[in-house]
Amino acid sequence: METVNTTKSQMPNKFVYYFAAGDAEGNASMKGILGGKGANLAEMTAIGLPVPPGFTISTDICTAFYDNGGKLPEWVRPKVMEALAKVETRIGKKFGDVKNPLLVSVRSGARASMPGMMDTILNLGLNDQTVEGLSATSNNPRFAWDSYRRFIQMYSDVVMGMNSSLLEVTLEDMKAEKGIHFDTDLTADDLKKLVGKFKALVQQMTGQSFPADPVDQLWGAITAVFKSWNTPRAITYRDLHSIPASWGTAVNVQSMVFGNLGEDSATGVAFTRDPSTGERKFYGEYLINAQGEDVVAGIRTPQPIHLLQETMPGPYKDLEAAYQKLELYFKDMQDIEFTIEKNKLWMLQTRTGKRTAKAALQIACDMIDEKMLTEDEAILRVDPASLDQLLHPTLDPKAVKTVLAKGLPASPGGVCGHIVFTPEEAVELREKGQKVILVRVETSPEDIAGMIAAQGILTSRGGMTSHAAVVARGMGKCCVAGCSEIDVNHEAETLKAKGYILKKGDLITLDGSTGEVFLGEVKTIEPKLDGNFDRLMKMADKIRRMKVRANADTPADAKIAREFGAEGIGLCRTEHMFFGADRIDSVREMIVSDTKPERERALAKLLPMQRDDFYQLFKIMDGFPVTIRLLDPPLHEFVPHAEDEIVELAKRIKYDVNRLKNKIASLHEFNPMLGHRGCRLAITFPEIYEMQSRAIAEAASQLVSEGFKLIPEIMIPLVSTAKELEMLRAQTIAIVEKVQKEKGIKFDYQVGTMIELPRAAVTAHEIAHHADFFSFGTNDLTQTTLGLSRDDAGRFLGTYVSQGIFAKDPFVSIDQVGVGTLVKTGVDLGRQTKGNLKVGVCGEHGGDPDSIEFFENVNLDYVSCSPFRVPIARLAAARATLKRNKK
Amino acid sequence: METVNTTKSQMPNKFVYYFAAGDAEGNASMKGILGGKGANLAEMTAIGLPVPPGFTISTDICTAFYDNGGKLPEWVRPKVMEALAKVETRIGKKFGDVKNPLLVSVRSGARASMPGMMDTILNLGLNDQTVEGLSATSNNPRFAWDSYRRFIQMYSDVVMGMNSSLLEVTLEDMKAEKGIHFDTDLTADDLKKLVGKFKALVQQMTGQSFPADPVDQLWGAITAVFKSWNTPRAITYRDLHSIPASWGTAVNVQSMVFGNLGEDSATGVAFTRDPSTGERKFYGEYLINAQGEDVVAGIRTPQPIHLLQETMPGPYKDLEAAYQKLELYFKDMQDIEFTIEKNKLWMLQTRTGKRTAKAALQIACDMIDEKMLTEDEAILRVDPASLDQLLHPTLDPKAVKTVLAKGLPASPGGVCGHIVFTPEEAVELREKGQKVILVRVETSPEDIAGMIAAQGILTSRGGMTSHAAVVARGMGKCCVAGCSEIDVNHEAETLKAKGYILKKGDLITLDGSTGEVFLGEVKTIEPKLDGNFDRLMKMADKIRRMKVRANADTPADAKIAREFGAEGIGLCRTEHMFFGADRIDSVREMIVSDTKPERERALAKLLPMQRDDFYQLFKIMDGFPVTIRLLDPPLHEFVPHAEDEIVELAKRIKYDVNRLKNKIASLHEFNPMLGHRGCRLAITFPEIYEMQSRAIAEAASQLVSEGFKLIPEIMIPLVSTAKELEMLRAQTIAIVEKVQKEKGIKFDYQVGTMIELPRAAVTAHEIAHHADFFSFGTNDLTQTTLGLSRDDAGRFLGTYVSQGIFAKDPFVSIDQVGVGTLVKTGVDLGRQTKGNLKVGVCGEHGGDPDSIEFFENVNLDYVSCSPFRVPIARLAAARATLKRNKK
Repeated sequence: METVNTTKSQMPNKFVYYFAAGDAEGNASMKGILGGKGANLAEMTAIGLPVPPGFTISTDICTAFYDNGGKLPEWVRPKVMEALAKVETRIGKKFGDVKNPLLVSVRSGARASMPGMMDTILNLGLNDQTVEGLSATSNNPRFAWDSYRRFIQMYSDVVMGMNSSLLEVTLEDMKAEKGIHFDTDLTADDLKKLVGKFKALVQQMTGQSFPADPVDQLWGAITAVFKSWNTPRAITYRDLHSIPASWGTAVNVQSMVFGNLGEDSATGVAFTRDPSTGERKFYGEYLINAQGEDVVAGIRTPQPIHLLQETMPGPYKDLEAAYQKLELYFKDMQDIEFTIEKNKLWMLQTRTGKRTAKAALQIACDMIDEKMLTEDEAILRVDPASLDQLLHPTLDPKAVKTVLAKGLPASPGGVCGHIVFTPEEAVELREKGQKVILVRVETSPEDIAGMIAAQGILTSRGGMTSHAAVVARGMGKCCVAGCSEIDVNHEAETLKAKGYILKKGDLITLDGSTGEVFLGEVKTIEPKLDGNFDRLMKMADKIRRMKVRANADTPADAKIAREFGAEGIGLCRTEHMFFGADRIDSVREMIVSDTKPERERALAKLLPMQRDDFYQLFKIMDGFPVTIRLLDPPLHEFVPHAEDEIVELAKRIKYDVNRLKNKIASLHEFNPMLGHRGCRLAITFPEIYEMQSRAIAEAASQLVSEGFKLIPEIMIPLVSTAKELEMLRAQTIAIVEKVQKEKGIKFDYQVGTMIELPRAAVTAHEIAHHADFFSFGTNDLTQTTLGLSRDDAGRFLGTYVSQGIFAKDPFVSIDQVGVGTLVKTGVDLGRQTKGNLKVGVCGEHGGDPDSIEFFENVNLDYVSCSPFRVPIARLAAARATLKRNKK
Repeated sequence: METVNTTKSQMPNKFVYYFAAGDAEGNASMKGILGGKGANLAEMTAIGLPVPPGFTISTDICTAFYDNGGKLPEWVRPKVMEALAKVETRIGKKFGDVKNPLLVSVRSGARASMPGMMDTILNLGLNDQTVEGLSATSNNPRFAWDSYRRFIQMYSDVVMGMNSSLLEVTLEDMKAEKGIHFDTDLTADDLKKLVGKFKALVQQMTGQSFPADPVDQLWGAITAVFKSWNTPRAITYRDLHSIPASWGTAVNVQSMVFGNLGEDSATGVAFTRDPSTGERKFYGEYLINAQGEDVVAGIRTPQPIHLLQETMPGPYKDLEAAYQKLELYFKDMQDIEFTIEKNKLWMLQTRTGKRTAKAALQIACDMIDEKMLTEDEAILRVDPASLDQLLHPTLDPKAVKTVLAKGLPASPGGVCGHIVFTPEEAVELREKGQKVILVRVETSPEDIAGMIAAQGILTSRGGMTSHAAVVARGMGKCCVAGCSEIDVNHEAETLKAKGYILKKGDLITLDGSTGEVFLGEVKTIEPKLDGNFDRLMKMADKIRRMKVRANADTPADAKIAREFGAEGIGLCRTEHMFFGADRIDSVREMIVSDTKPERERALAKLLPMQRDDFYQLFKIMDGFPVTIRLLDPPLHEFVPHAEDEIVELAKRIKYDVNRLKNKIASLHEFNPMLGHRGCRLAITFPEIYEMQSRAIAEAASQLVSEGFKLIPEIMIPLVSTAKELEMLRAQTIAIVEKVQKEKGIKFDYQVGTMIELPRAAVTAHEIAHHADFFSFGTNDLTQTTLGLSRDDAGRFLGTYVSQGIFAKDPFVSIDQVGVGTLVKTGVDLGRQTKGNLKVGVCGEHGGDPDSIEFFENVNLDYVSCSPFRVPIARLAAARATLKRNKK
């Protein structure tokens, strides 16, 4: 292998890139060899900003380092020293010079930002001699010795691998001894002593003396950066994100500047626009005679940036010019860090600034008006997920909070209310005007009334697509699910967490966007939509190719969906209509029937109610398509299981109690998810779907007779074979035609199917013969493809995500490699049979921006999601179209 | 459409094919246009056998019939009449002649045998005039009138669509009126009166008079055959078997012969060899002066065929010549029907004879010795599934039986025993020397001891791959599963069925090959393997490409597997080793542990036991590969759920009862099949697989030190991502290498995975990087691909199979279109990464002949099945290789 090694560690033509204002050897396009940080530093200097001079050692050297057995090849050193000399010349200081020493920082910087890598070493170049030079030139011995002890702490930890807590303890001991509280109270002499102790401890613990030669220090730091490329954490992260090990990291060496050299020095951070409102004004804060850390430490209160204009008019003017230049250049709001050293401005970093959703919209709209961005560019600047903030109340970020527990952020929003443990209590207290939070181990369809009454829902079990999560999202109601840190006892009506025992009536607050649960009341902020929102939505609608529909089961849902711009209903779950108090007993009578005539009698009672349900929905959707999924869940979901409830039900429906118990017991399933549900119910009990088809057809006839237009889409769930759909399609068509004949009214309608089982996806070419449309049910498709019950996965999903086995919760963002392959197969096979087959998705993924991008790329016609996610989907679909067109 | 119609119903060049001994216009290769029956009749005549003359109307005319709007085109008639004239000439009778009438039969006959088609009309050509001619020529008026009334019954039913029960009632009324019991007691006059009544009733009920003109009769019958091609039942059958509607059926018109014309006439059925032993002797029975129906009716006792030699030496000689000719020609044992009319032999039918497994082997071996068949041909003659009969006791077919219920034939064999309802009772009674049948609603792993003790197992729930079925097949023990016709009450210890209430101790008999349950004791026949079996197996082994392994968890299983010729263990389910009385409590301690050290302590107790398990297995398999699957089921399967059992367990393992209850409750899963199991257990609790890997490595080291050879194959279950396997493979290798170092012993071993989730199949190219082998777990792959829980599917699987949605139970024979596509994808993708990747299957399908053929065609390296199915798999694999090579 000798030859290969030699070949690989051959010296590249160029591998050290110098930069200083107006004189950069690299640029922003060279991320591959300079890394992200190096390329950006080069770019900032290229556009003439005052960046402390330095150089970047290219990623090629990382490869050469490993090819050379984990050592820097000898030919690296001369080129590095050459670049260092250029920095010395530019800045007028010399590395290791005892009079006027040049100090540098050393930082890693890979092509993509990555955890597990070495971060930063500051003040490199200090030793017992140079510290005196620094002391003299700065005329500030305390500053010099403080810089030195900080350097030893960082270097011994990062480069020499010493346990950093040992030096921390030494520092604390000294403070205790002197009876002081802050590091800043230590004098120059104290710090000098501390440095002595530090060096002794390093020798003792590592068996090596702390390197005194600045060049040895530099060499050690560069080596440490390259070594950090292969830490276990970095390797795991790379595996997870498919980053090749061959990329390597670059090393940035940059001269130090100091904001703590006196009253003519300062340090600060700023945003080019207000990050919380988006207002177009320079926004930030600074501290005179301070280091970056001091701003964060909060010991002194920073000043608002506009005051700097008076204090240091010169540097401020430069700063203003710099930020304007940066914003124009990057065409986005920037988050910048700067230091003023003796009245001279230095730019340390610039990056895209984080912002609230409100600000993101404001900035995007303003930048269009300022001609800084096109509409397409602006659309790509707003994170769709952030819109959630605009649609739900949020917790006041300034409020003081006591975290009680953390669960899954199942449905966004911030709400406060009194704890209740049963749906009945929820309804009762709600009627008395109280705000309540329904707390359950998990919810079931019987809890719906209580969920409607509650402000928010908290469950201790279940994942992101558990019943509680799905229903709450559908209602746009705050929900924290699967919060295993709380212990819910329904009998005792208590909620235990962190030693607290909360009882019915106690106040808690939920943050559905983070999954946090807080003790007591936390102030919330009501959402407000402004003109920017509408403007952005209109722009998105012009761009996107896919339609966006909503999953809506009730007239109330449908109205919200329309308000949020849904272009139809992609999924109406008819079973949700079965739980109304006026009808659930008829449903149960149907279920416990032993014969077809009995079943038909019970179904006849349900027919007028279902017909009215559909009539309302069609009317609200006013000509937009409405996809109605026929009954899907297993029948045991509709019957009570508690002894007393069974007894009561038997009385109400006049049924023998023991027979009812036996009947209910006989409905038990080991794996209901894979059981007697969906179209399987219709194969064994055809009369159920017959009733539903009739209700749809009668409602449609009525509306047509009233002059409305509509095209009902009847959807058959859980199809695994073409034959099932063929039979049920024929049955459905027969019923609809019969009703049309009876009423003397014609209307168009479609019969389609869900593709939610792997078998349906791989036989989609057969199934398509009998389908007018496909709708991917990616929730169930995820469960079956991964063999993963969404209700049970909570036990290990956390471990799976944290260990990087799943990049994300596959119920939140579609597993593109696995489930996605089956979706693509299903689409392609289906259209192989019917070229223009309409295909959509109605699983929870329909509202997830990453999933939406995937759906765009596999050519779906529409996505359907919870009403409150419709705006997110509209924006995400537009972005997906733009990204695809760019390719 | 006029032109199309004309074109399609254009007259073919030839469409009526005449046949009579030595003069056939068709032959056996013309099944496409003559249908199966027509082609065989032509063939029989071609080889010179005395077949009653007749002709076949080709399948083209069926198409023409439908193209012509459901009517026979006019150009058909002259050609049919022409052929009829040839028959008249040959036989010396005339159709419709009042003196010496020709009578014919009309039968359908498509390319493939199909239910729902018109069967037979006999005696066509009779009317009030020709009946007198028949009466005169036969000199038997009773015979003539009886033939006439039978003709009216058949024709009015099949051609005129009349409710056939009406004529039956008229016949019964006349018998009652005359006080007689048998049709044969009716005189010629009675029958003449009956014919009159029949014709009047036909007129009354259909509004048409019964057709008197023989040509009209013929036309009606031919039309009825073509119409029967499109009965709903026929269409369903065609859909199910992918038979194109365009094939159409042919019509066979053949002159009648009669065995009931006096003492010089006879009728009989015979086999060319003994169908129950295979012995090479002519075997059959006959009746003098009788019709075919009379043999079946059982009023007179038929004579053994050898007596015919004395009674009718001439016809017998002809018959002997005929059967030898037929067997030589078809190279298989034939089941023939013949009639002797006035000392003249007529051959009516020949077809491949059904036979017992024993006979099949004997015949196959004899025919090789007789040079009639090659070994390859002989292998293709023995139905692998039939071998089951040879391996298990069977019920005496002659025994009188009372059927109590019918369930699924879950595991073959015939056994009798006393009913018990708990595993404890089974063990107890067994120890007292009684034979018992364990009756359960369903079984669970806790029932294993009882299942071992029982002769057979009967469950009222669960499918062909339920726990009871899988375990029983593994043990080679008779099992009837999912017998929903019985009502099992564990509390009352009763079994109700058909009004009987059986109690503990009552005797029942199970037929695991048919699923039948009988009241009381039914005599059984013990199986006996003879030299033919070994000979066939050796031939199969020479031919087959795929290896055959067994699924075996215990030394006992492994021994049986070796005796049946298994070439290794393809699946050792380690969890089955966890249920032993000596270790189950340690397993439970491990499960309820709250911390890793607690778990490790409990696992340490299990280690020596597991090590010994593996030591035994490896030793028995003596160098053959052994695939050990690490722990797979969810942990809650190992803990008790009944209150009292939990209390006892708590005492035994010294654990707080309430804490234990909570712990067990917390293990509950909604869909355990999709829950926390398989490799997911190892991701969250790595120490479990670590203990198992260590046990394997220590056992292997011990054997190597004793001079044995072995290659353990460690298999990780339920993998859905490459990352899981990568992590667990690394962990396994680390443990094995550690043990090797400790013991100073090296041995080869492999680490592979099951492919049993759709995601694993579609990402097999990624997974293969970390796998030395794949084993398809088609049970779970079927459950997830179809979204079908094998434990719950019982409710609707019957309906699904009977309605033709599934051709077969997908847990018995692999769903080739759906699940099979994923298997093929997995194999192809896996080998895309590793060209020589070893791939097998260890699901229940590994023992199913149709599935084995599929596995051959997708290039698996081996199949693994229950020990008792190994011989079946060996034969099926050989047949699959032969069939594939033919292609």
